[in-house]
Amino acid sequence: MSQKQQLIDQVIQAWHALQQQSPLVQCITNSVANNYVANVLLAAGASPAMIDNPFEAESFTQISSALNINVGTPTTEQTQAMLISAKTAQQHQVPWVLDPVGYGEILKWRSETVDQLLQFQPTIIRGNASEMSALAGNLTQSKGVDSTLNSQDVYAQAQSLLQHTECIAISGESDYIISKELGIVIQVNGGCHLQPKITATGCALGALTAAYGAVSSPTIAALASHIHFSIAGRLAYDQAQNVGSFNVMFLDYVHMLDENLIRQYHSIQCLESV
Amino acid sequence: MSQKQQLIDQVIQAWHALQQQSPLVQCITNSVANNYVANVLLAAGASPAMIDNPFEAESFTQISSALNINVGTPTTEQTQAMLISAKTAQQHQVPWVLDPVGYGEILKWRSETVDQLLQFQPTIIRGNASEMSALAGNLTQSKGVDSTLNSQDVYAQAQSLLQHTECIAISGESDYIISKELGIVIQVNGGCHLQPKITATGCALGALTAAYGAVSSPTIAALASHIHFSIAGRLAYDQAQNVGSFNVMFLDYVHMLDENLIRQYHSIQCLESV
Amino acid sequence: MSQKQQLIDQVIQAWHALQQQSPLVQCITNSVANNYVANVLLAAGASPAMIDNPFEAESFTQISSALNINVGTPTTEQTQAMLISAKTAQQHQVPWVLDPVGYGEILKWRSETVDQLLQFQPTIIRGNASEMSALAGNLTQSKGVDSTLNSQDVYAQAQSLLQHTECIAISGESDYIISKELGIVIQVNGGCHLQPKITATGCALGALTAAYGAVSSPTIAALASHIHFSIAGRLAYDQAQNVGSFNVMFLDYVHMLDENLIRQYHSIQCLESV
Repeated sequence: MSQKQQLIDQVIQAWHALQQQSPLVQCITNSVANNYVANVLLAAGASPAMIDNPFEAESFTQISSALNINVGTPTTEQTQAMLISAKTAQQHQVPWVLDPVGYGEILKWRSETVDQLLQFQPTIIRGNASEMSALAGNLTQSKGVDSTLNSQDVYAQAQSLLQHTECIAISGESDYIISKELGIVIQVNGGCHLQPKITATGCALGALTAAYGAVSSPTIAALASHIHFSIAGRLAYDQAQNVGSFNVMFLDYVHMLDENLIRQYHSIQCLESV
Repeated sequence: MSQKQQLIDQVIQAWHALQQQSPLVQCITNSVANNYVANVLLAAGASPAMIDNPFEAESFTQISSALNINVGTPTTEQTQAMLISAKTAQQHQVPWVLDPVGYGEILKWRSETVDQLLQFQPTIIRGNASEMSALAGNLTQSKGVDSTLNSQDVYAQAQSLLQHTECIAISGESDYIISKELGIVIQVNGGCHLQPKITATGCALGALTAAYGAVSSPTIAALASHIHFSIAGRLAYDQAQNVGSFNVMFLDYVHMLDENLIRQYHSIQCLESV
Repeated sequence: MSQKQQLIDQVIQAWHALQQQSPLVQCITNSVANNYVANVLLAAGASPAMIDNPFEAESFTQISSALNINVGTPTTEQTQAMLISAKTAQQHQVPWVLDPVGYGEILKWRSETVDQLLQFQPTIIRGNASEMSALAGNLTQSKGVDSTLNSQDVYAQAQSLLQHTECIAISGESDYIISKELGIVIQVNGGCHLQPKITATGCALGALTAAYGAVSSPTIAALASHIHFSIAGRLAYDQAQNVGSFNVMFLDYVHMLDENLIRQYHSIQCLESV
């Protein structure tokens, strides 16, 4: 059986486990994404809880099956909660996803928080090409974000982040998943050009990655969530070609995904690691 | 006329009053629910206002027709606002609903806030079975939440909360409304299994209960909001069997409810009080 | 060419510029509106960023193409961010829109913030009739908000606000745009009676006004956003007559608007200034 076939089988296993276990996913996310993230997790089969205050962070992370931290619109209290929950997740081996929204020179406050969060070894780091490039560039003392970088450059550069995490997921026209465990890069195709036109899809993808992280290895978690979204996006677009209607159908297909749809519509490619 | 028939007539009266008066409902609710709650209240005929800061809480509660407090994602400032508004509501006889989201051992900070809020005698307490059981259990020195409790056990146990409130509403597959005034328990059937798959439906139900509380007695307020949601859920499901589409239709039917639909589709049962 | 025809040509130009430039619009808005505002801006062609903390406000406003400040559900940190960003916008000539949600006697804290924000000379002030009347009344030492004021009275009264801004937009059954530059009042008709039944439509209109402000003069920015919304509302209502479905179609039409639809469906009238 090919590596690709093995990966898809594991994704299907992860999807079944998500349905059966409905893992409790703590989300500390931004105010734009909160409602959407919760609905996407519910539709996908997980059980979301948006516990984002510093007074309950420690006790709640301890009983959570996974944790999603997204720095999109941080407040002082949320920032405190992020640091407490990330530390707790590391101590209690709760898989957690870091989504460094807006990381870079312009937004220093959140970027400093992200730098601090990295010490707690996120299981998976997920972001768009600009964010991941900035995050990797910061580590190598380079500065600034070049939005014209192509994906190949970004994923090559982003590998330096593997010192902090098990797995990196970079979303874009094609998504790239960089696995420390397997030493490979997996390209995920599909999705729909309307997805960037709907706010918080990236944030929801990060949260879904955390949910899958509760029931599978880091690589499979990232791969499963990205395949989940790319298939739902593709099938939704067959039904609705405009943003409002598309978003309704997208939620429907996030919920309707099943083993057959994964087998029929996945589109991935295993690339050599750099 | 049977008690059941009398109750339904009063629910219909409450619905008409809601349309005519469009009461101003102050909501201090969570960041996941905020937008959805506002849309549900508007669709139902009420006038929502999400005033949740401690600096405006007192003056705004004084002019509000009802108040909804939901501790889903509390911040320090919101918690201060809750205490001020609850106190003001009690002083000015503004009917108010307490929704103790997540009450229990794990989330101590909000639970302590809920304990403090109880002293201001919420008109109605509304929650799911786990929350209500924890809230009642706390009062009787028992600990923990057993999610496998059946509804009968929960509503029997929850009656101890009547020392703090006029009416208790417990949502689940069937909802139970415990009326101090009438000394009965009313079971509300219907709804749709997709409702728990959409975030903040419970929060919106609490807010709608507050809205009805502005125009009717506590028992009728709780009964009207639960019937409103159960009929809208049932009719929406006839049109759309998936989460995204269902949610759109649900809002449509929250808006379309009328006297005839209430008469035709309500499904309630009066049980003896324990 | 008539003045009206010239205005419509400039609106069309602004719409094209919005599509081509996709300006970065910083939004400091309320928790009810956040997600909806972002989706409306994306659908319309702009690039929203909800940066609302005081630690990143200055650096982000400097690189933004426009700024939208909405005081709907202020926190202490957001209030600080508003003041910093408004000041920065004035210094760096970033066009900015002030949306004084709930301005008046009852909500003093936010009203004081609005009073402070006025010193930074918002490019455009946008609100409903009650808010604008209160805001103008405050300046002339009168008190209270009369919701039964007719639009003519409000827009006459609101002209006193021109000392603080280039342009005033008052939304209602008909919208009124008061231009200091042109010395005229433009009435925008259309839209749909369901729009007030959906929360945050006014907030989204303010944000869209800011987006157009990045690519056109204040008058054209206000006119373009109000025409954009009134046409999308009208066409959405042709497809869907209920709140949930209407809202989905509304987003679709915000996205689908184009030159032809603007030419065909705009309905404006130039009135003499008072």
